[in-house]
Amino acid sequence: MSRLDLHPDRMLPADATLRPIAREIYQAVRDLPIISPHGHVPAQWLADDVPFGDPTSLLITPDHYVTRLLHSNGVALSELGVGQPDFTADQSRAAFRLLCSHWKAYRGTPVKFWFESQLTEIFGVNTAPTAETADEIYDAIAAKLRTPEFRPRALFDSFGIEFLATTDDPCDDLASHAKLAADPSWTGEVAPTFRPDKYLEAAGACWNEAIDRLGEVSGVDTGSYAGWVAAMENRRAYFQAHGAVSTDHSHRDARVEPLDDAEAERLYRLARARTITPAEADTLRRNFMFAQARMAAEDGLVMTMHPAVHRNHHPGSFGHYGADIGADIPMQVEFTNAVAPMLAAFGTSPYFQVVFFTIDETVYSRELAPLAGFYPSVYVGVPWWFIDAPEAMARFRSAVTETAGFGRTSGFIDDTRAFLSIPSRHDLSRRVDAGYLAKLVGEHRLTLDEALDTANELVVGNPRKAFKL
Amino acid sequence: MSRLDLHPDRMLPADATLRPIAREIYQAVRDLPIISPHGHVPAQWLADDVPFGDPTSLLITPDHYVTRLLHSNGVALSELGVGQPDFTADQSRAAFRLLCSHWKAYRGTPVKFWFESQLTEIFGVNTAPTAETADEIYDAIAAKLRTPEFRPRALFDSFGIEFLATTDDPCDDLASHAKLAADPSWTGEVAPTFRPDKYLEAAGACWNEAIDRLGEVSGVDTGSYAGWVAAMENRRAYFQAHGAVSTDHSHRDARVEPLDDAEAERLYRLARARTITPAEADTLRRNFMFAQARMAAEDGLVMTMHPAVHRNHHPGSFGHYGADIGADIPMQVEFTNAVAPMLAAFGTSPYFQVVFFTIDETVYSRELAPLAGFYPSVYVGVPWWFIDAPEAMARFRSAVTETAGFGRTSGFIDDTRAFLSIPSRHDLSRRVDAGYLAKLVGEHRLTLDEALDTANELVVGNPRKAFKL
Amino acid sequence: MSRLDLHPDRMLPADATLRPIAREIYQAVRDLPIISPHGHVPAQWLADDVPFGDPTSLLITPDHYVTRLLHSNGVALSELGVGQPDFTADQSRAAFRLLCSHWKAYRGTPVKFWFESQLTEIFGVNTAPTAETADEIYDAIAAKLRTPEFRPRALFDSFGIEFLATTDDPCDDLASHAKLAADPSWTGEVAPTFRPDKYLEAAGACWNEAIDRLGEVSGVDTGSYAGWVAAMENRRAYFQAHGAVSTDHSHRDARVEPLDDAEAERLYRLARARTITPAEADTLRRNFMFAQARMAAEDGLVMTMHPAVHRNHHPGSFGHYGADIGADIPMQVEFTNAVAPMLAAFGTSPYFQVVFFTIDETVYSRELAPLAGFYPSVYVGVPWWFIDAPEAMARFRSAVTETAGFGRTSGFIDDTRAFLSIPSRHDLSRRVDAGYLAKLVGEHRLTLDEALDTANELVVGNPRKAFKL
Repeated sequence: MSRLDLHPDRMLPADATLRPIAREIYQAVRDLPIISPHGHVPAQWLADDVPFGDPTSLLITPDHYVTRLLHSNGVALSELGVGQPDFTADQSRAAFRLLCSHWKAYRGTPVKFWFESQLTEIFGVNTAPTAETADEIYDAIAAKLRTPEFRPRALFDSFGIEFLATTDDPCDDLASHAKLAADPSWTGEVAPTFRPDKYLEAAGACWNEAIDRLGEVSGVDTGSYAGWVAAMENRRAYFQAHGAVSTDHSHRDARVEPLDDAEAERLYRLARARTITPAEADTLRRNFMFAQARMAAEDGLVMTMHPAVHRNHHPGSFGHYGADIGADIPMQVEFTNAVAPMLAAFGTSPYFQVVFFTIDETVYSRELAPLAGFYPSVYVGVPWWFIDAPEAMARFRSAVTETAGFGRTSGFIDDTRAFLSIPSRHDLSRRVDAGYLAKLVGEHRLTLDEALDTANELVVGNPRKAFKL
Repeated sequence: MSRLDLHPDRMLPADATLRPIAREIYQAVRDLPIISPHGHVPAQWLADDVPFGDPTSLLITPDHYVTRLLHSNGVALSELGVGQPDFTADQSRAAFRLLCSHWKAYRGTPVKFWFESQLTEIFGVNTAPTAETADEIYDAIAAKLRTPEFRPRALFDSFGIEFLATTDDPCDDLASHAKLAADPSWTGEVAPTFRPDKYLEAAGACWNEAIDRLGEVSGVDTGSYAGWVAAMENRRAYFQAHGAVSTDHSHRDARVEPLDDAEAERLYRLARARTITPAEADTLRRNFMFAQARMAAEDGLVMTMHPAVHRNHHPGSFGHYGADIGADIPMQVEFTNAVAPMLAAFGTSPYFQVVFFTIDETVYSRELAPLAGFYPSVYVGVPWWFIDAPEAMARFRSAVTETAGFGRTSGFIDDTRAFLSIPSRHDLSRRVDAGYLAKLVGEHRLTLDEALDTANELVVGNPRKAFKL
Repeated sequence: MSRLDLHPDRMLPADATLRPIAREIYQAVRDLPIISPHGHVPAQWLADDVPFGDPTSLLITPDHYVTRLLHSNGVALSELGVGQPDFTADQSRAAFRLLCSHWKAYRGTPVKFWFESQLTEIFGVNTAPTAETADEIYDAIAAKLRTPEFRPRALFDSFGIEFLATTDDPCDDLASHAKLAADPSWTGEVAPTFRPDKYLEAAGACWNEAIDRLGEVSGVDTGSYAGWVAAMENRRAYFQAHGAVSTDHSHRDARVEPLDDAEAERLYRLARARTITPAEADTLRRNFMFAQARMAAEDGLVMTMHPAVHRNHHPGSFGHYGADIGADIPMQVEFTNAVAPMLAAFGTSPYFQVVFFTIDETVYSRELAPLAGFYPSVYVGVPWWFIDAPEAMARFRSAVTETAGFGRTSGFIDDTRAFLSIPSRHDLSRRVDAGYLAKLVGEHRLTLDEALDTANELVVGNPRKAFKL
């Protein structure tokens, strides 16, 4: 049982009528380039082309998809290297053994698909993870990571990545992006993304400090709301000059609501004086979001929004290990009323575009597909984060397509900091969409030619359109 | 690729086991008469039997299912004739070309099914819409529309419509309905539906004017709440005398809550004095709804409710083009608590019946199926508007049937102003339900005989029962 | 048509590829013992081994799954024996005829599967229920019920029940459980469950009386909040000494929020003085829940929560017939924020375990799977009550597995007072899970060996783990 044989048709429909149709559609898009307009790979990896470390620090520790399920199955995050700067080689190997001995916990999850695809297709390992095979797999991966073919730039090329966006703080100097742009030996495209969340949350403990820094970096006095606006415009322009195509936003709710300038100024000054209440900070944040939308309608940076996640749900783990450890839990979200003021103002503006992501699947058929089926500026983001998985993807197509068609969706988003999982994530999406299209062909809702054209659009056309590439 | 060959089994399951079962079920109901207890076709078309105009004004301009997706794909509504009283023949032809050249936007949507079915089965056109074929199709349709077989009454007959309900203002004199009833050459059945929404929304800009008119038409003084009640009873009786079987209601929420008469009178007088607040108007509206339910329990008109849509979501487009242009966006809805006072009072009354429609699919298994599985007065409305589509219909059956069975659902509702799409809409519903029933047969959950009987009930028995036909 | 032939593959996928895979998986778990960690069978039945009465009082009257759908189809509950202590033999027979003549109302519901399985597999009746066959079936069942093989203990053995939990009032003396434990001829395992709801709802009409009784039974003065806590700890220990493994909780919302002791004491005294407001009672109840969680973290009893049902939705029927008649209607629920304080305090405590059940399917992928995918203490309860049905079960696996895997789910819960339906309920669950696993095998997402191991875990391993058996 320790042999790992991945079936070439995996994730395609089992049905004997649909399988060959799906296979044909999948084969037609399998080798198309990867367009990744939203993710978390550090640009520095590519700029400096530093070799990766051991298998655990590459594949386990930083990937909360992997660590969270081990944690819920009783493994301490510390044993996986989370928050352990002095993790030893022995500890790394032990962590890898923990993963392999708990491998059954991942049955039915996309982590199994991604990880097994990486094992076979990237590392050439055809052994299933078990307690017994852990060391053998670890050593095989470690050996590969020492070769030049496994340096970041070499992998970037071999993965066929056409476009990769990073996610960056507005005050970041984007030095790695600049270094890549200035490097004649580098032919890939890596763009920054403007992620200003913490500058919009005025009740946050670090807000004043962040705003001070924003003032320094932009050279604009951020003592007033007008200054905040000017500083934001300044940094957005800086990002755009370094290749950015989008801004990214995640708050507790999706509301976007303008204040008149006097009220915005009043609340802003309360915040700077650290006397703003949480409710007032929410009001101010919704106005900040409106301001971002107004800027987007002018500079043309695409907005992406993915609201309504309860961050750091377990305070104890946050205290020990910090953020991004798999303890963010989604909440219910509302878009129809929340974004109405934004779309009233900019929904038909020629430069304005916004992509709505959600983990609350209820809004797909009820709110997002109707919005994207009317507003030329609105795109429905594909399933993301927790629901970036085959059956959730199929539910998404089923919920969205009948109202908004295929063309109003964003194209696949890998949203990952696990660089080596990027090909398998895009591959999974292509397989699942091929299966959905095969069903439409099998039910005579599309011709095969229509399905083939649509599959191509989903992989290449949609992300280019939604992200203005 | 411009040949349009519709497969006779389209929309049936692709699975080789289920396909022949579904086909047999579908064949058994395919030619049953059409019962359409809720829709928006003007009675005047049939009363006066006026020939239809050009293809665009018949098939594109008035149909927000068609126009909204073109709009989201960048076509101005004005180019499609929306709000353009002086649209020329050349403009009509150009609009039709826009539809055909954007035809791929409709892939995966039911518009594609409805429109292609109309092309082939009504107009005898077997050419797929493309930029190149637009004129040829336009001319073929236009030629047919000039023939006597395409006059409204002839189509009504050829469609096999047994019952058709219109939707009407309570102050409407129902002259066209009366004309049809008095016409010995007319053998069809066309009934009005009482739609009093605007008379229940006391904060609306036109409410006072509407209430004045209600007073005039009913001959009852509407200066008091008691007068409003008497006037409503008067008009409901008038509608019932003209064949109405139901009343139709759509508000921002589903709440139905009685006030005592003194409080209702107080709020009513505030409203007449135009000093009512929005919150008070909501309170009054929920009492108005309770009054409608009380009347329904007495006169036996079936209530249909389809709450929770944010109407005219884009104010700019509403200003330019008015209502019903595809910019209504659904919102989350709550029924369990909202309708509790109504069902406490009338839920087991022998004459009371209510059908709950929703675009918020979350309430199907959670609220509506449980309600219809206990209350003999409650029916679950089938998917409607945005979710009137094959996969949403399948989700509906999956969510509702296991709790409420088949018999507590409403029968198919086309809800359309696109007269020529009525046969294809009912046909799609029959195909999808046949597919769902085939699955139950294939999984040995129903015998084929049970499935055939159920299919017949869904098409004929359920609407007759739910709408007391 | 009156022959009832149940197909051995019923409820397995129709697809020709998946059917044999599903069959193999199902066969492997079909005869595993039944573990039933939550239900409503009275322990007294087994302790006293009293013969069952007539078919109606056994199979219809007490089973709201059966009666509610007859009621919605126009049958009065009184005709079914509900709330009729003097129901005669003739009336029982007439009630059974009503069920059989309305048999088509159950098409597509799990009641049809359960009931037909009982007919054939328990009673050996192979006749489909119709108006004509009602008496024949009634007589056949009645004859069987008079035999020794149909006494409760004999059925318990023949059903292969390994563990059965009852649901009990904290003040119950658990005499039947003690009697069973003391009976050397009894080898089964029947455990009580601590269900303290009414002692937590301080605005309830009977709360003070209940709290007085709690004081008497525990021997602790319940005049203070501290006394309430001590009395609860006392009764939990009593239950644990009688074999209890879990406590069960159902309130209008899922919120669990601690108060400081002084505030809890203040509200508690208001409640004892009958001057607490409903809002204050909610606050107190959420603190009571926190106290239960704290006790659970100490004594290790597993908590099960199934909040958000509008109980006794129709006051008229409640007045006539009382509770548990099928008129409880689910509402929307929220977990992520509601349980955050509980999980912040105990979510990683070694003895704490909680199972979240819901009828609001929207929380499966959005909230429950993410929670169970991080917290080692959290299990996702399988579909229950209204959604204890094949397609809902499939939706559950689809929504939960991709985020939380299989191992974080509770195992099947029959939750029934219909003793004879227990085997068919567990059998249905095994069939549906086999179908889901077959799909994963057919799509090469799991190997057959992985699927077989998983199927076994779902039936045996998961309930043992989730309920600490």
